[in-house]
Amino acid sequence: MGRMGEFDLLARVRERIAKQGPRVLLGSGDDAAITVPGGATATSVDAIVEGVHFRRASEPGLGWIGHKALATALSDLAAMGAEAGEAYTALGVPDDLDEDGCLELLDGMVELARETGVTLAGGDVSASPVLFIAVTVVGHSAEPAALLGRSGARPGDRLVVTGELGAAAAGLLLAEGGGEPDAVAPPQRRRLLERQLRPLPRLAAGRALAAAGATAMIDLSDGLGGDARHLAEASGVRLRIDADALPLAEGLEEVCGAAADPLRLAVSGGEDYELLASLPTAADLEALAAEIGIGLTEIGEVLAGSGVEIRLPGGRTMEPSGFEQLRRPRTAP
Amino acid sequence: MGRMGEFDLLARVRERIAKQGPRVLLGSGDDAAITVPGGATATSVDAIVEGVHFRRASEPGLGWIGHKALATALSDLAAMGAEAGEAYTALGVPDDLDEDGCLELLDGMVELARETGVTLAGGDVSASPVLFIAVTVVGHSAEPAALLGRSGARPGDRLVVTGELGAAAAGLLLAEGGGEPDAVAPPQRRRLLERQLRPLPRLAAGRALAAAGATAMIDLSDGLGGDARHLAEASGVRLRIDADALPLAEGLEEVCGAAADPLRLAVSGGEDYELLASLPTAADLEALAAEIGIGLTEIGEVLAGSGVEIRLPGGRTMEPSGFEQLRRPRTAP
Repeated sequence: MGRMGEFDLLARVRERIAKQGPRVLLGSGDDAAITVPGGATATSVDAIVEGVHFRRASEPGLGWIGHKALATALSDLAAMGAEAGEAYTALGVPDDLDEDGCLELLDGMVELARETGVTLAGGDVSASPVLFIAVTVVGHSAEPAALLGRSGARPGDRLVVTGELGAAAAGLLLAEGGGEPDAVAPPQRRRLLERQLRPLPRLAAGRALAAAGATAMIDLSDGLGGDARHLAEASGVRLRIDADALPLAEGLEEVCGAAADPLRLAVSGGEDYELLASLPTAADLEALAAEIGIGLTEIGEVLAGSGVEIRLPGGRTMEPSGFEQLRRPRTAP
Repeated sequence: MGRMGEFDLLARVRERIAKQGPRVLLGSGDDAAITVPGGATATSVDAIVEGVHFRRASEPGLGWIGHKALATALSDLAAMGAEAGEAYTALGVPDDLDEDGCLELLDGMVELARETGVTLAGGDVSASPVLFIAVTVVGHSAEPAALLGRSGARPGDRLVVTGELGAAAAGLLLAEGGGEPDAVAPPQRRRLLERQLRPLPRLAAGRALAAAGATAMIDLSDGLGGDARHLAEASGVRLRIDADALPLAEGLEEVCGAAADPLRLAVSGGEDYELLASLPTAADLEALAAEIGIGLTEIGEVLAGSGVEIRLPGGRTMEPSGFEQLRRPRTAP
């Protein structure tokens, strides 16, 4: 794509995006966007790359790629308890993706932005030998103290997780032609595939957990085992997770059949983009679960020490790394 | 690079970067960085891609690539008159770039960040078939009104440009084995090459021009002709540029010899990353030039109408597009 092609594309992109969010004074189309944050901001950047994080041929449409790029970035803001604000996108466009294709991809982003109240406030389009989408998202909070990192978990806190685990991994299993697709009804199958292809950032749940006094929080991009280790390390604590308590995704066991271990998928499958949080014992989990509306499950406890242990049925414990044989390399051959 | 490789690299990166800038409460290493902007922010994103914007083999070292990625992004903040604040980097790492190579690349960014007072507050590292660096930069200003877009130029304003023009294009000519390298002394040659490979964002000049009442400003990434058109279009005005008045880079004419037209390089060469601004007639150009220290040249005037005209010696005028035959495709074969 030449420079003129870039300019034309940018002009067409600008027609489709809201220029003005609540804090945006000047949106896309100048050297930089101007915003007035007015409090504390949380900023995160995430990139997805063709052949590494997705394959065009496996996606139902280009819009799903745009959705996923923005969704995974927003998931980091959810994990901070921030209100999503603005997004800035750097798009690398290969020769075999034309302008209409780029717009279809961006439309997936535009739709999710609308649903989450995000302003697409700027971007850059560049020729590239490979399709990539790097998204920087900015979230807001009136008070810096209301934004929540990974480092505040204290011994005695309870560990909770939103929603369900293993759905994205089950979807990947199905997408790759594995598992037992006929063990679940078509709508269930579609739902698991969607959890893989079209993750939803848990923004409202993140804000509710932060407001309820969560002491640390992280989004589950790498998988419960790996992300729990990050939280444990940042907080300087040990985490005990009860395998029995994990909210396995509906249909996960059926789809696994004899081909995969559902517990393994739930612990190390990754890409569920649920939230793992530590909460003081005083927090009212039932009221919070009702507020969040997507389920909230107590799965363990914060202990003194370091590392993560998973308590299996029968009293045996193991490290999350024991579950990670199954992790698939995301890199295409 | 596998996930574990990414984590190791990120840990090593974090050792090298300042975690805390004046507005940064929580830097790299969590789901997001936390800042307290406390006024208005200007945010811009820019990506450079191997084979399109640079070739590893043509660079003196990997650090120069990191420098260029951050410098070109910061140039957009300069054009807003913003104080540079934080940078967030998404790095796509191919198989043939090892961890030490990544750190060398990032060191170029770390050094420029230190020189410009920028905090590297977050990032993402991903495997990628091609090396790319997407940088989001956030600049600050106490007052939203002090940040300057492209759209405020008014008929009667004077057009000024910082520094000198055509140096980066002359450097490219030399780098590609063209022009007359022996027509200038080695230090001059090195200086022209550096202007191509190691652009410097005009941050202080941008702030001074904004404070002096500039009505519109843009950085010269595409070349004076193309960027003047962007400013004219955004402001709804016509720009007249006097070719005689252009501050041609020292050594440019000598290096061009018979092989290239120096005026063409100055108008359409691109990548000089100087600033083009419109200023009310009342502004004291001499005092401003003394303050800026890198030269400030009046090169024309803002008129009513649309488009850009370049007045040539002898009274003929032409459109900038007439100069653009020479523009080289940046895409590697």
